[in-house]
Amino acid sequence: MAGVDYLADERNKAEFDVDSMKIVWAGSRHTFEVADRISKLVANDPAFRKDDRPMLPRKELFKNTLRKAAYAWKRIIELRLTEEEASKLRFFVDEPAYTDLHWGMFVPALKGQCTDEQQSKWLPLAYKMQIIGCYAQTELGHGSNVQGLETTATFDPQTDEFVIHSPTLTSSKWWPGGLGKASTHAVVYARLITDGKDHGVHGFIVQLRSMEDHKPLPGITVGDIGMKFGNGAYNTMDNGVLTFDHVRIPRDQMMMRVSQVTREGKYKQSDVPRQLVYGTMVYVRQQIVADASCALSKAVCIATRYSAVRRQFGSQNGGPETQVIDYKTQQNRLFPLLASAYAFRFVGEWLKWLYTDVTQRLAANDFSTLPEAHACTAGLKSLTTTATADGIEECRKLCGGHGYLCTSGLPELFAVYVPACTYEGDNVVLLLQVARFLMKTVSQIGSGKQPVGTIAYMGRVEHLLKSRCSVQRAEDWLNPSQVLEAFEARATRMSVSCGQNLSKFSNPEEGFAELSADLVEAAVAHCQLIVVSKFLEKLQQDIPGEGVKQLLQAVCGIYYLSLLHKHQGDFLATSYITPKQAALASDQLRALYSKVRPNAIALVDSFNYTDHFLGSILGCYDGNVYPKLYEAAKKDPLNDTVVPDGYHEYLKPLLKQQLHSAKL
Amino acid sequence: MAGVDYLADERNKAEFDVDSMKIVWAGSRHTFEVADRISKLVANDPAFRKDDRPMLPRKELFKNTLRKAAYAWKRIIELRLTEEEASKLRFFVDEPAYTDLHWGMFVPALKGQCTDEQQSKWLPLAYKMQIIGCYAQTELGHGSNVQGLETTATFDPQTDEFVIHSPTLTSSKWWPGGLGKASTHAVVYARLITDGKDHGVHGFIVQLRSMEDHKPLPGITVGDIGMKFGNGAYNTMDNGVLTFDHVRIPRDQMMMRVSQVTREGKYKQSDVPRQLVYGTMVYVRQQIVADASCALSKAVCIATRYSAVRRQFGSQNGGPETQVIDYKTQQNRLFPLLASAYAFRFVGEWLKWLYTDVTQRLAANDFSTLPEAHACTAGLKSLTTTATADGIEECRKLCGGHGYLCTSGLPELFAVYVPACTYEGDNVVLLLQVARFLMKTVSQIGSGKQPVGTIAYMGRVEHLLKSRCSVQRAEDWLNPSQVLEAFEARATRMSVSCGQNLSKFSNPEEGFAELSADLVEAAVAHCQLIVVSKFLEKLQQDIPGEGVKQLLQAVCGIYYLSLLHKHQGDFLATSYITPKQAALASDQLRALYSKVRPNAIALVDSFNYTDHFLGSILGCYDGNVYPKLYEAAKKDPLNDTVVPDGYHEYLKPLLKQQLHSAKL
Repeated sequence: MAGVDYLADERNKAEFDVDSMKIVWAGSRHTFEVADRISKLVANDPAFRKDDRPMLPRKELFKNTLRKAAYAWKRIIELRLTEEEASKLRFFVDEPAYTDLHWGMFVPALKGQCTDEQQSKWLPLAYKMQIIGCYAQTELGHGSNVQGLETTATFDPQTDEFVIHSPTLTSSKWWPGGLGKASTHAVVYARLITDGKDHGVHGFIVQLRSMEDHKPLPGITVGDIGMKFGNGAYNTMDNGVLTFDHVRIPRDQMMMRVSQVTREGKYKQSDVPRQLVYGTMVYVRQQIVADASCALSKAVCIATRYSAVRRQFGSQNGGPETQVIDYKTQQNRLFPLLASAYAFRFVGEWLKWLYTDVTQRLAANDFSTLPEAHACTAGLKSLTTTATADGIEECRKLCGGHGYLCTSGLPELFAVYVPACTYEGDNVVLLLQVARFLMKTVSQIGSGKQPVGTIAYMGRVEHLLKSRCSVQRAEDWLNPSQVLEAFEARATRMSVSCGQNLSKFSNPEEGFAELSADLVEAAVAHCQLIVVSKFLEKLQQDIPGEGVKQLLQAVCGIYYLSLLHKHQGDFLATSYITPKQAALASDQLRALYSKVRPNAIALVDSFNYTDHFLGSILGCYDGNVYPKLYEAAKKDPLNDTVVPDGYHEYLKPLLKQQLHSAKL
Repeated sequence: MAGVDYLADERNKAEFDVDSMKIVWAGSRHTFEVADRISKLVANDPAFRKDDRPMLPRKELFKNTLRKAAYAWKRIIELRLTEEEASKLRFFVDEPAYTDLHWGMFVPALKGQCTDEQQSKWLPLAYKMQIIGCYAQTELGHGSNVQGLETTATFDPQTDEFVIHSPTLTSSKWWPGGLGKASTHAVVYARLITDGKDHGVHGFIVQLRSMEDHKPLPGITVGDIGMKFGNGAYNTMDNGVLTFDHVRIPRDQMMMRVSQVTREGKYKQSDVPRQLVYGTMVYVRQQIVADASCALSKAVCIATRYSAVRRQFGSQNGGPETQVIDYKTQQNRLFPLLASAYAFRFVGEWLKWLYTDVTQRLAANDFSTLPEAHACTAGLKSLTTTATADGIEECRKLCGGHGYLCTSGLPELFAVYVPACTYEGDNVVLLLQVARFLMKTVSQIGSGKQPVGTIAYMGRVEHLLKSRCSVQRAEDWLNPSQVLEAFEARATRMSVSCGQNLSKFSNPEEGFAELSADLVEAAVAHCQLIVVSKFLEKLQQDIPGEGVKQLLQAVCGIYYLSLLHKHQGDFLATSYITPKQAALASDQLRALYSKVRPNAIALVDSFNYTDHFLGSILGCYDGNVYPKLYEAAKKDPLNDTVVPDGYHEYLKPLLKQQLHSAKL
């Protein structure tokens, strides 16, 4: 029946004000209102339909993406959308496209690395999309190690040009989004060579295609790198491959804000501090954390709603079966993910503040907090993206067999999300960077240098090394200061223990390599502490709305207690808690599941996602799942005919025992 | 350069005889020889090419699968392959198809559930593929809970027929492979109703499509359920939806081996024991465990080879960068998966023996070991498929960005594998079944009933509850009896603790539901113990070949020590080991990584997979990865033209600021 809300009972159970929670989730009333308006605008426009994506062959899929991107830009102009609204519109269109790289990487690179003069030339073109740009850094043989890039940019003083060249196969640019088919220009990273001297990797603006007919310019070979994981997903993007055969560009297309090459071919640094690059890095990573929370919350919304719709077992006297969400095993897998979505939302909000703080300090030439901010954002990027990728797949499994259907939305959500674990720093490499920072902090203990920001707790190392958990009853695990100390003690002890083991090696680098698995675990402990502490800080704030704060307290409790249980080996091995206290934590966790259960649907409604944005039949708002699945199946191209293509050639001869004469 | 082995250096490092290890992996020289011969036959036949799968639209993909299945059957007939060889051929063709269900479910169901008379009618047709059958059990609204199925089969004594009917939308058969487009017949599970009485779910043979033109018979609505996760992957399969509108079948198409309906409509049991169904279940699950080992070993083979090819960081004085496989963080993620592949191989081999044992006992009306065998196979199915699904994705991440390309083979391997976590029993539901068995065993302790088979250790419960780990040096963790006791003590203590907590509830079912998360963990501990103990038992056998047993000992050590580390919370919480002993286990684990490192490539070569079967450029035998990636990219349909379809309609108007007049 159209219009019936099959989840109405669930919605009536909520013990908090959902509208208020929507504001909390969005961050502010303004952000909520913009997102609400723009998401509905997109959802109500059939031009932005996306449910056909998994069925489209690659060429049609890509062409359709080009159409949507152009249409979105047209609407942005027609509706005179603000920059914030335009960005939201692209976000809710929810389809990877060259515009992501143009706006998200190319424009920021111009702003961050070009001189004012260069910016005044290139930015107006980019802002109007008279040129389309991408960000060509990684190469076929070189990913994480930027310093290992092979592409060269050799200055030719004769002509005042750089010669961009790909000396080897492995130096081919490989992966840049928007490069394969759409971009007219690229920011290209290459080894700068002047007068035979290698100055390391620098950025250059290179035109790739003719503005007349879009054909690659002489010396440029460019194409798409082929299909990627999943149906639809990132296959809407033209990740590209690019090689240069001695391509010449004017000298003023080197991005010269930080370092320059003069007309005479002299390489020199400007007085702009190199640390500026960290500001961009903090910005990009806070965006990734925000994206993690969004992706995870979508998956959780789908799995939670379908867990309330779906019934299995437990029928008594012919009555309906039990809702799957009522099983503790389901809650034990689902609710920690729901809690993680909220946790990542709030730590992402805090990271926005951190970005502002870092930017202000950079402007004042204060670089003191940079190492801490760098370690913190690297760690949070790693933590949240790993947990989100795993969490989406877990949500898919929580939907049983139907989660495997494209119409559940979860396969595409997973496939489109997982690259986040690799791009902008491989997650394990990033944790090793965090570990280096931790080991440096540990080594400076007692030197009088006070650790700041998220590592400030190390200043209380003596206390944290000797304290013991004082929990005696399950409810004691609801005490924020007790919880904070537990996570601080665990993180401190794991770092200090690594430091002690490292000191046994005569060669510190060798020790770091040998102990890297332990170091990664110490880094994870530190990062989890940050997320827990930011969630607890959020709860110290005034949060309006009936029952909202109480629910968030329960959600926060689920977040840290499920972490504590999952990593109880750490807490026990560092002897901060006893097995008995670990068991009490599990008791409290179960109690919180019961508290959250009647609010589960309302907690995911608070994300305020449209059915279009969610893109999932299993997660549809009204819960009317089965008729929709049935109707959607009919649309598969394989159902165009009752008797399939290939019956006459391949099935009939087999059934009729006539294969010997069949042409196969 | 063609013909160069880029991994030759790695192969020369091996400290064991690879040919002997290949025999160990295959299980016997005979099995190795058959697999080697048939896999090469498939690999060398271009008709079985599969690298184009990710790019094919659904209809072409499916048609191509019909072609391959027919061609495979033709070759099986032409070459007069034995049943073993034919089955291997289908295995190495490596493409989900209706034939999987025909041979793997339909034929076994006929054999297991039909009377001799019924078998003599239907089996010859099925063996010659004059009919194609599938297995129609699950429904749109009913998966795990078979007893909840809604389809009805009502006996009509007037006509001596059953009327098969779908009373609701949720009763539509949904998921059966081969049903959507290919099958002519199905084994349909439906509630048997005679004279108004519901006798529960029984199986019926129902013809679905005309043998003349393949059109659905009257009253039957059938089609494909649409796209599933991944490129290629399971989209070669026509998982189907099927509804019945009062479809009539003769009474003798009820499968009557175990229970019957007489001409008069009387329902009665035969004297064939119902427990026979468990024999089939053990068979199917041992096959799933074998498949897990195969899928995981493919992923591990790809990730291991590419980790030896790929270099990142660590370049000194302009020399080559470090092979990724030399990083301890890489080893710490990869080698436990390599070890798991071997562990699952050996426990799968043991399960084959268990199946034989169970079959013999059933034939002798000995049902005493059935509960244990059932719990054991349920648990091992759950454990190995979960670990394999997670392991494939981890291997993908271990390949960095390139693992995200379809040409890496890993996306398809993951997508095609993950349903194993859900089908034939959802993995969490299965663990709860194991937990029930454990709780029953615990409750019978002291009753004089001796636990048998894989649960026999519970007979030593008193000792296991009070013993303490005696490890003093890292090497002590190489002592098999010490390791076995550690896993036994952990499993026992977790089960006993659950039993104690359960006894606090007045309603045992309520307690079981409330504590189900803990119970699942206890079940995992029990299952891990089984895998560890079977690996250790394997090493007690005579294993020929230079260095083979030594390497397997190191691999086994990595398996159990990485488990011990991952679950150290269990071992510490149950107070069997101390934090110091846990740290010693990690030290020993690192030492084993160093032992295995030079043998890593040889250990994956021992799987003897052809490049065709592996289906991965990153995992290709000769390691010549980059030129192959480059060439493969060119084949993407998007590269058919340099300027993409859609440029003129959507890109040019945008770049030329003419969107206002563009038709989008």
